[in-house]
Amino acid sequence: MKCAFCDIIQGAVSAEIVFEDDATIAFLDNRPLFPGHVLLVPREHLETMADLSDNLVGPLFANARRIARVLESALGAEGSFVAVNNRVSQSVPHIHVHIVPRRKGDGLKGFFWPRHRYLAEEMARVAEQLRAALRESIAK
Amino acid sequence: MKCAFCDIIQGAVSAEIVFEDDATIAFLDNRPLFPGHVLLVPREHLETMADLSDNLVGPLFANARRIARVLESALGAEGSFVAVNNRVSQSVPHIHVHIVPRRKGDGLKGFFWPRHRYLAEEMARVAEQLRAALRESIAK
Repeated sequence: MKCAFCDIIQGAVSAEIVFEDDATIAFLDNRPLFPGHVLLVPREHLETMADLSDNLVGPLFANARRIARVLESALGAEGSFVAVNNRVSQSVPHIHVHIVPRRKGDGLKGFFWPRHRYLAEEMARVAEQLRAALRESIAK
Repeated sequence: MKCAFCDIIQGAVSAEIVFEDDATIAFLDNRPLFPGHVLLVPREHLETMADLSDNLVGPLFANARRIARVLESALGAEGSFVAVNNRVSQSVPHIHVHIVPRRKGDGLKGFFWPRHRYLAEEMARVAEQLRAALRESIAK
């Protein structure tokens, strides 16, 4: 199976790589939300966040933190947006952490606007479904 | 300084808590993008992702992974969206990881649409700025 990010990792396709270590590599998204939009990926081909091993989840997000830290000073950003799309809205099926420089008034505020209200007993019911599933995930 | 999430952590304000361990706590957002929208926070009051210690970044995102894993099976979602807003678009200045169930056609596709193209030499220049800043961050 062809994977656009594995091609970059293997050097078969060029990219503006900004950071790499043994486990991860980071390069510029070529259709950025804003200039300096970085994609951070594990070298290992894993599809979603759920597939990250215990050994990988820490280093991957420590590097996301490292990149978020430098975006502000290096690019004069006022903040950052760090996000992972799993399956839905995921363009390439190789987990990638988006790290995007943000500025006030940059137009991305709409991101978090289409919010809903819970119906009367819906919130407690949904919470109980999640609590039960999380308890089960720990017992395993 | 009052912090809405510290109030929840300390039990002064009630919330639908779905998961907790020594370092973190997760509860339902009361204005969800979709039902089952979880906020995962460290118990320690830290403002942004950049402030997470080496000891905390791994456990925090391992728990985000745990929650993302169960959202699909527990709520019949097709995927998930995991995101952190640092400073810009950040409603509460206590770092929180959004973990949101996603379904195809749920209307959130617009999230990643306002993409830009780099000007001719802009991409290489931005990449070099980031590479230099990241090299410097490692040397420290």
